[in-house]
Amino acid sequence: MTSLQLHPDRALPFAPEQRRVAKQIYGETKDLPLICMHGHVEAEVFAEDRPFADPAQLLIVPDHYVFRMLASQGIDLAAVGVPRADGGAVESDSRKIWRTFCENWKLYRGTPSRYWLEHELVEVFGVDLVPSAETADAIYDRIAARVAEPQFRPRALLDRFNIEVISTTDSAFSRLQQHAKLAADGLGERVLPTFRPDAVVYLDRPAWRADIAELAAVSGIDTSTYDGFLDALRQRRAAFAEAGARATDHGHLSADTTPMDVDVARDLYSRVLAGADPTGAEVAAFAAGMLYRMAEMSCEDGLVMQIHPGVLRDHNTAIAKTHGQDKGYDIPVRTEFTKALRPMLERFGTHPRFRLILFTVDETVYSRELAPIAGAYPSVRLGAPWWFLDSPEGMRRFRESATETAGFYNTSGFVDDTRAYASIPARHDLFRRVDAGYLARLVLEHRLGLDEAVETAVDLAYHLPKQSYQRG
Amino acid sequence: MTSLQLHPDRALPFAPEQRRVAKQIYGETKDLPLICMHGHVEAEVFAEDRPFADPAQLLIVPDHYVFRMLASQGIDLAAVGVPRADGGAVESDSRKIWRTFCENWKLYRGTPSRYWLEHELVEVFGVDLVPSAETADAIYDRIAARVAEPQFRPRALLDRFNIEVISTTDSAFSRLQQHAKLAADGLGERVLPTFRPDAVVYLDRPAWRADIAELAAVSGIDTSTYDGFLDALRQRRAAFAEAGARATDHGHLSADTTPMDVDVARDLYSRVLAGADPTGAEVAAFAAGMLYRMAEMSCEDGLVMQIHPGVLRDHNTAIAKTHGQDKGYDIPVRTEFTKALRPMLERFGTHPRFRLILFTVDETVYSRELAPIAGAYPSVRLGAPWWFLDSPEGMRRFRESATETAGFYNTSGFVDDTRAYASIPARHDLFRRVDAGYLARLVLEHRLGLDEAVETAVDLAYHLPKQSYQRG
Amino acid sequence: MTSLQLHPDRALPFAPEQRRVAKQIYGETKDLPLICMHGHVEAEVFAEDRPFADPAQLLIVPDHYVFRMLASQGIDLAAVGVPRADGGAVESDSRKIWRTFCENWKLYRGTPSRYWLEHELVEVFGVDLVPSAETADAIYDRIAARVAEPQFRPRALLDRFNIEVISTTDSAFSRLQQHAKLAADGLGERVLPTFRPDAVVYLDRPAWRADIAELAAVSGIDTSTYDGFLDALRQRRAAFAEAGARATDHGHLSADTTPMDVDVARDLYSRVLAGADPTGAEVAAFAAGMLYRMAEMSCEDGLVMQIHPGVLRDHNTAIAKTHGQDKGYDIPVRTEFTKALRPMLERFGTHPRFRLILFTVDETVYSRELAPIAGAYPSVRLGAPWWFLDSPEGMRRFRESATETAGFYNTSGFVDDTRAYASIPARHDLFRRVDAGYLARLVLEHRLGLDEAVETAVDLAYHLPKQSYQRG
Repeated sequence: MTSLQLHPDRALPFAPEQRRVAKQIYGETKDLPLICMHGHVEAEVFAEDRPFADPAQLLIVPDHYVFRMLASQGIDLAAVGVPRADGGAVESDSRKIWRTFCENWKLYRGTPSRYWLEHELVEVFGVDLVPSAETADAIYDRIAARVAEPQFRPRALLDRFNIEVISTTDSAFSRLQQHAKLAADGLGERVLPTFRPDAVVYLDRPAWRADIAELAAVSGIDTSTYDGFLDALRQRRAAFAEAGARATDHGHLSADTTPMDVDVARDLYSRVLAGADPTGAEVAAFAAGMLYRMAEMSCEDGLVMQIHPGVLRDHNTAIAKTHGQDKGYDIPVRTEFTKALRPMLERFGTHPRFRLILFTVDETVYSRELAPIAGAYPSVRLGAPWWFLDSPEGMRRFRESATETAGFYNTSGFVDDTRAYASIPARHDLFRRVDAGYLARLVLEHRLGLDEAVETAVDLAYHLPKQSYQRG
Repeated sequence: MTSLQLHPDRALPFAPEQRRVAKQIYGETKDLPLICMHGHVEAEVFAEDRPFADPAQLLIVPDHYVFRMLASQGIDLAAVGVPRADGGAVESDSRKIWRTFCENWKLYRGTPSRYWLEHELVEVFGVDLVPSAETADAIYDRIAARVAEPQFRPRALLDRFNIEVISTTDSAFSRLQQHAKLAADGLGERVLPTFRPDAVVYLDRPAWRADIAELAAVSGIDTSTYDGFLDALRQRRAAFAEAGARATDHGHLSADTTPMDVDVARDLYSRVLAGADPTGAEVAAFAAGMLYRMAEMSCEDGLVMQIHPGVLRDHNTAIAKTHGQDKGYDIPVRTEFTKALRPMLERFGTHPRFRLILFTVDETVYSRELAPIAGAYPSVRLGAPWWFLDSPEGMRRFRESATETAGFYNTSGFVDDTRAYASIPARHDLFRRVDAGYLARLVLEHRLGLDEAVETAVDLAYHLPKQSYQRG
Repeated sequence: MTSLQLHPDRALPFAPEQRRVAKQIYGETKDLPLICMHGHVEAEVFAEDRPFADPAQLLIVPDHYVFRMLASQGIDLAAVGVPRADGGAVESDSRKIWRTFCENWKLYRGTPSRYWLEHELVEVFGVDLVPSAETADAIYDRIAARVAEPQFRPRALLDRFNIEVISTTDSAFSRLQQHAKLAADGLGERVLPTFRPDAVVYLDRPAWRADIAELAAVSGIDTSTYDGFLDALRQRRAAFAEAGARATDHGHLSADTTPMDVDVARDLYSRVLAGADPTGAEVAAFAAGMLYRMAEMSCEDGLVMQIHPGVLRDHNTAIAKTHGQDKGYDIPVRTEFTKALRPMLERFGTHPRFRLILFTVDETVYSRELAPIAGAYPSVRLGAPWWFLDSPEGMRRFRESATETAGFYNTSGFVDDTRAYASIPARHDLFRRVDAGYLARLVLEHRLGLDEAVETAVDLAYHLPKQSYQRG
């Protein structure tokens, strides 16, 4: 039985001269605090600070990267405990779920999940066994024992993980109660909310009318008209900013930002609120118009705007019906930015308070659209490689494709964007290693001095995310 | 005159440490039998087992990779013996054709054709001269002598090439007579048919009505209605399965799988059969609907479904008129999969008997669409890099772009997909070398153990193609 | 203060064995004369042969790569002296502009601008200081002194830069007076015009009617009808050819080449000339139709046709209004070639006098569309990586993506395409270094002999651009 170990030079380039330089660069970034400006760990996790559940509930059941790979080989989601939205039964024996995962360890070869999980097993949980049918129980016991210890509580991990600041993602109508508790506990500067209004800008969401009512209740502003709706959003943005938020986040299918004529928007809003079904085109146009409005509000209140476009959610409707959203069947689509962002950028792109951070899961836009846009508009920064691209090869291609036109200083530095809390250190560490490798190549090809490479690496790991998410 | 030699480490990475590990990995795969689950060598070649013609007729005239490169530099197709569909004269002096090819050897620098041809010349034909005007005749003589020997007959080469199993591609209305002969000769398990119905699902093919009539004749089922047409297809699929077929193949322009309303399909089918000209939109919609129907039938009969979309055939109509189809003027177009496959995958994507293998000549979909789809749906496997991408760089980019999301085990392993019989060993060998190089990098970057890399390489070369093409 | 030096092996691969081979190859190309078949240095520069202005006016103000990077970090274009179209004031203190640039040197890390500028500073101007706030004045003084010397006049630099031939770009209605002067001065074979009719084929250009009138005046042909317009273009093409032009150039948004029905074109042309506003669709269709016509004329007069599609000019209308065109806000869009070029290629693609050189800023088309097209049609060559892709990584990806299907001999060799005269040697040199690295890898992977690699490198650097731009 091989022992599970993390090689100190993992994910650094293997060529001896490149590894040597990369290690020098990585040596200057590896211990820097983590700046986690966008992610999906729930505020409740920090506010309640309860111990994590068992290994399966911590590492498998909530991680769509992990369970979709099992599903892709014919293992039913229910068999690995993924809850059903329809109330159907799912596997509840966490040890059994864990065994299924360990037996299928080889599926993760070559994936970032494997990389993160190895890091978590060794660094966070002190496991030294390679997952397999034989080792599953022993690993389970080790992790279960660890998560029961007080130093593995979520707040304690903030220190252990060296997290300087972390952002949650919160709906526009969140009352921010968890964040109030965090502030009362002295964590108000360390755990920040992020304003995410997707639920209320997509007119076809099943819960839209209920959410609009909730928005009124929370904001104290009548949302029965489009103007009231906008005012309520303004009020919530102000409340978020007050609670420490630095940014908004927008997960749209398209990056379209065409403004909607106000009278058209008023009419459409009222009709749908009154019960009418909007057409697909109306839904898309309203959402696009709301991106434009959100940019306008960012110029007013200085909240940094993030756009995460181009993912077709719940590709498999049957799975969405049985298991709910975000169950591994979110598939990217080709995404256009040049024309889509033009209305917004023409109007707000050079506004001194505006800051826009762009993400993509369509790599073809790095050199063609995003780098030229970020390399021209002062408001724009390129976000880090996202989701399927948050990986060694994905990060390398990002640097190789975007840097020559955007430079380093029009990028945001690393953004982990995960709901897997225990994977956060692994993700930041991997980014720092990949960047060190890329910068080492520039040094060895005499395109950059070593001192410049080190300064750039430190900026990418630490200063740029802080600076990019500064309120305008 | 330099001597033509194959370096034992060709196409392995050059960095000493990577080459060392890659050689270890490649050493474990290089002698594995070849699994050739999809290709275009004609069944007749094996059924008749006649000696191959001369060098030009074997290596140049039938190989569109080879003659389109000559054409691209102004050498007329007729001058290298490519037959004319219009009956016009073409060069018939094979020695002259061979000379033209040898004189232009430098055009192939950096191409996979060069790589395959070198392998064939040395390994298959024992040539040790670099092609040139001076060496053309000597090489011609050597190959001509070889192909006359009994051990160079097609069936003998099956052994020499270490081919465990090979699939042909056969039209839906093939009577499978060659396969019957092969079965009678004891080759029924080694040479398998593949069901390709493109000719009868594209309503605008000039021979469509004749082919539909032939389908009726072969199947014994009345194809005068859409329902009869579907029944005839079912009958042929059953006959193919009976003859050993494991798969169907679909070469559509688009990957669209939107089902067509049955009444609409019935009406359209009848109208076109009665002589009406379908619109372009009708042709495309009917073909898309047939992909959906074919998936449905695969769930019934377990035949693996292959889709090869995204090539605009016969870009140059004039060439197609004079020389016929497949004459090097097939040019890829951007291809969309996420939305296109959704109707099929929502309906059949998690069906236990369904297996779908997807190919592309649009690399942009690897990380954006195909890997996420294969990394979620249990029925889906990514095929090997296809056509223009079946090359060292193409294979490398495929692994680098697809693996992190799909893993290795949602890919099909190698599929040679060629009509150039003599190039088959070279193609499999190249794939094994490129994979060894990629896996060696993962090992050296401490992302994979060497034992895992070897197991993965063996799976990709041998077990995965066998398993991926197992009838459901 | 570090001294600024050019490492002799810069931009060559760092791996010792690869660098060794790459140096051997590069050693054979580095001193070859520069063939500059397409670019934007004004004919006036050579005709007048005046000394260059100060460092800021030479290196910053006219270079959109340089000033857009400053703008992207919030430095106003006016602050670095970029002239305003609206007559507004801009910074006129060149020393101050130069300081702003030097203070922001770090923004260029990892960009080709940095690479070119270092080369220019050291090689052309003898600067040995790294730009910074502290060194700005000293560097300014050094450059200012240099450009005042007679050997730094534009014509003298032709020799110093080892430029064998250079093309300017000239509007269709240029009177070619500067070229007449150059011919009179014995430079008629060394500085050539290029015919660029964009201004007159886009019906919605504000100056269109005026330009059409000018075309009539220059050609002496009545342009009040579409037929007259075509005749005037023919006349100008002949005049350009007479003046030494080898090529035409077409900077269209789309690559569409659908011919326009002659009667439709006549009517549209007349209506717009009479004052009607064309629709967007009419503008696009007319421009596409004119590409087709231009190809037709190329078959008549043998001028090589270049297409540079896919850039949305002046993305930010406000900047275009204040500062004019080409101010860094030109953003690429996805570009389709397979269907777009089909009408032209079906008609003229195999014509013996036709030569088409295709450029792109959408890399996704290299392997999918451009290489297959160039690898089939005898008239087509792939141009060098253009604009945002004229960079170390961009060039490497081009070779890796295009070579396997197009080979080397269906590419044009290097085309610098710059308005930054002093950067021309740096650009050619970089291309030769990157190609040497790519070819070295092929040699070390035993895919190409060293002698073949050297011959190929020399062809790419020198012979192919000469041959590709030969009049048909």
